[in-house]
Amino acid sequence: MKIDLNSDMGEGFGPYRLCDDEAMMKIVSSANIACGFHGGDPDTMMRMVRLAKANGVGIGAHPGLPDRLGFGRREMPFQPDELRQQMLYQLGALMAIARSEGMTVGHFSFHAAMGNMVERDPSLADLMMQTIFTVDPGLAIFVTAGSEIEKAARRARLKVLALFLADRAYDAHGKLVARGLPGALVKDEASVRARVRRFLIDGVLEAIDGSIIPMRARSILVHSDTPGSLELARIVRSEIEAAGARLVPAAELAS
Amino acid sequence: MKIDLNSDMGEGFGPYRLCDDEAMMKIVSSANIACGFHGGDPDTMMRMVRLAKANGVGIGAHPGLPDRLGFGRREMPFQPDELRQQMLYQLGALMAIARSEGMTVGHFSFHAAMGNMVERDPSLADLMMQTIFTVDPGLAIFVTAGSEIEKAARRARLKVLALFLADRAYDAHGKLVARGLPGALVKDEASVRARVRRFLIDGVLEAIDGSIIPMRARSILVHSDTPGSLELARIVRSEIEAAGARLVPAAELAS
Amino acid sequence: MKIDLNSDMGEGFGPYRLCDDEAMMKIVSSANIACGFHGGDPDTMMRMVRLAKANGVGIGAHPGLPDRLGFGRREMPFQPDELRQQMLYQLGALMAIARSEGMTVGHFSFHAAMGNMVERDPSLADLMMQTIFTVDPGLAIFVTAGSEIEKAARRARLKVLALFLADRAYDAHGKLVARGLPGALVKDEASVRARVRRFLIDGVLEAIDGSIIPMRARSILVHSDTPGSLELARIVRSEIEAAGARLVPAAELAS
Amino acid sequence: MKIDLNSDMGEGFGPYRLCDDEAMMKIVSSANIACGFHGGDPDTMMRMVRLAKANGVGIGAHPGLPDRLGFGRREMPFQPDELRQQMLYQLGALMAIARSEGMTVGHFSFHAAMGNMVERDPSLADLMMQTIFTVDPGLAIFVTAGSEIEKAARRARLKVLALFLADRAYDAHGKLVARGLPGALVKDEASVRARVRRFLIDGVLEAIDGSIIPMRARSILVHSDTPGSLELARIVRSEIEAAGARLVPAAELAS
Repeated sequence: MKIDLNSDMGEGFGPYRLCDDEAMMKIVSSANIACGFHGGDPDTMMRMVRLAKANGVGIGAHPGLPDRLGFGRREMPFQPDELRQQMLYQLGALMAIARSEGMTVGHFSFHAAMGNMVERDPSLADLMMQTIFTVDPGLAIFVTAGSEIEKAARRARLKVLALFLADRAYDAHGKLVARGLPGALVKDEASVRARVRRFLIDGVLEAIDGSIIPMRARSILVHSDTPGSLELARIVRSEIEAAGARLVPAAELAS
Repeated sequence: MKIDLNSDMGEGFGPYRLCDDEAMMKIVSSANIACGFHGGDPDTMMRMVRLAKANGVGIGAHPGLPDRLGFGRREMPFQPDELRQQMLYQLGALMAIARSEGMTVGHFSFHAAMGNMVERDPSLADLMMQTIFTVDPGLAIFVTAGSEIEKAARRARLKVLALFLADRAYDAHGKLVARGLPGALVKDEASVRARVRRFLIDGVLEAIDGSIIPMRARSILVHSDTPGSLELARIVRSEIEAAGARLVPAAELAS
Repeated sequence: MKIDLNSDMGEGFGPYRLCDDEAMMKIVSSANIACGFHGGDPDTMMRMVRLAKANGVGIGAHPGLPDRLGFGRREMPFQPDELRQQMLYQLGALMAIARSEGMTVGHFSFHAAMGNMVERDPSLADLMMQTIFTVDPGLAIFVTAGSEIEKAARRARLKVLALFLADRAYDAHGKLVARGLPGALVKDEASVRARVRRFLIDGVLEAIDGSIIPMRARSILVHSDTPGSLELARIVRSEIEAAGARLVPAAELAS
Repeated sequence: MKIDLNSDMGEGFGPYRLCDDEAMMKIVSSANIACGFHGGDPDTMMRMVRLAKANGVGIGAHPGLPDRLGFGRREMPFQPDELRQQMLYQLGALMAIARSEGMTVGHFSFHAAMGNMVERDPSLADLMMQTIFTVDPGLAIFVTAGSEIEKAARRARLKVLALFLADRAYDAHGKLVARGLPGALVKDEASVRARVRRFLIDGVLEAIDGSIIPMRARSILVHSDTPGSLELARIVRSEIEAAGARLVPAAELAS
């Protein structure tokens, strides 16, 4: 069995760091690299590409809204075409930086509010996915199973890869429990371990209401910007290895 | 005879305009598009790409320093690798925007201080040109004949295209007379017309000291951010047509 | 009779200009100076302060949202306290620049979306006005007569000055007709002249439905960022002078 | 004996932190607050002002170059008047934020490259100090004893307060040993303790060559953006208390 383990990376800026990217790059199989709008800058992006290359990690574009102060988490009143251009600009920037190192951007993952805005508007999702297809028809799109973004990516004939968030609760329909709600975050190690193990072995998950639901993901996302994220990533990785699964960059698993 | 006429374009930002890009795009054969650091933004870049497409104009990347306030005209203490990443970031951004419209970035032209810093440092010039080659070996580099950038581009096996600045005086060695010096700018229409005509017909130029020097350029640059630039561009174009030359995008002329 | 004529100024940025501020400063009696977020920068602000000083023009703070690309015209999801800090930051910056030239910031006028957000939320309006009072209880607030901002300013014991927009249509209730609607903009010179004259002489205005309404303003605002704005300002000024009224900076008229 | 202990604070930005400002504010008697150019933003500034107020800490302006990416550490080609306006803008912004909380900015301390540029150019130092005097003649300027900034501040009739950097080596002339040189940083606790104690008791310091030099400072600066800075600050504070000295905000000690 093959599985991907990925994290958002390079989200620092100039003197600022959100994550120990060097350490995280030794754990994951794919890196979602911030592209300079919500986080990151050209130098940080290059550093991430070089780290990924040195560690055999696959790289993906992780574009966000041009709102560094709000870390791309606030929805903003941009028009569809503006959002599209912002996405294209960031994607292209990373592609050139990667190519200069002989690397290829293999996947794509929206950051925060940009993703939320796209998910809510199917015609915007189509615009985005069709645009990505024109730039690189081989890019794999990270999605939540059943999402509008997944549907739009399929319509655009792009490959997708469904994510499982090991440290977040899901409801009985397989949707993420919103961050503000009680129980939304799974914090203790033992629970995370158990969830990852069950997902890897049986392909299911215990939802927040106790029901058992299928989780059809091929990729596990661990957040990098929270305290303890490195340790969490190590735990997930050890469970993957214990289950006899093999870590593979996202782009090789997408379909 | 084939010749290129080009201008720096899309150097506005949000509500601001420096040039009537719509009108200029009807005159030139190539557009050097600002890439969002010294001027321009993702939406403006897309507008330029679409205008170029509609007018059969070739497009080039025109990256500058991240100094919007100073319009990229002030040299800044960036390290070679930082400058390289800044260049890559901007180049890639434009490439993706162009590709989404079915267009290709055909040429490359440094803006202001970034170009000056590269010109002064042959090892930096090599770094830049080798990097461009890894991203797109087919890109044509705009150069001043005899410059370090030209030499570095040749070493990197990139095609180049030498520029003639119709509204600037040259010294007897074929170097531009610095902006601050008397006579550096050629302002009256008749002189510009005469210079363009002589260049087109005889391939020579009268230097500021009265000597006649060869001008081995295949491309004429007109500035877009000065009053009267549109009229100047129209004059140059009419001289090109009067000389029986044919306007061709830069990328087709580079070698 | 005393009246103020004012305009938003210094809204350019670095190499960009939206208005011939030098010419406009010779026409108005008060300048609403952009404070570096939606437009302007420290140097431009100083230039405006010096121009105002040289021309005997009163100066006011004109803060906006930190959205240079959208020129502060897009509402953005900032929290009340964030908006308050943004306003304070800009106001203080201008106060120090003014003081260094021996000038005093006499009035305050919200720019675009920041003003719209404050107008819509009376508790935010109170927060803003009370904050302004703590910083300078003598500041005069530019308001639309009957607005929430006027009410909040009164509650905070700040002086206010009502504005008349000479080039915009009003409805029968004295509210501005929204920009998108037909007839919202009064463009021809003769109409502007007639409206200003009637306002100056009779204190009334013909609303868009033909009814005659009172216009209890002591200050006329002319926009500076539209073509023809200088000419419009000259027309308004000539009408003021023809009516025998005297131009006086806003701060002297507020009550 | 009275002494000030201060640190640069609020140098984070949006989601980013460089220091545990909440903890540091419980240790120092004065806070040098970043003003939004090299670090900080309006909300962070307000948070610092409120923290200072809650902890009885004096506040000062800590303006830097508009170079967030380089953290204000790179000298940049700004003209004297531009630097002056940048400084004024930041100073005024903090003054208004402080005033809205009933606090007063009591001191002033340049950040990094802005300070270096001013120190190197006595006429620029005069321009800066005279400008500060026009804005607030009561501000106390943080200086290195014997520096050009100190001389200029004296000429401008501003109060000054000399700093002692507990974790940096000095040469026999009382100048800081440049960061790059061996021994420039004093890292071990015991040495820092010993230096602070000797300074407090005898007013002297052992220079890097072993000579004993006078250190006529009334204020100790501890950096906040390095690992271990909180612990270092606690050590310095405990030595101050052990010496029977009393911690007092900078503005009360300047003369």
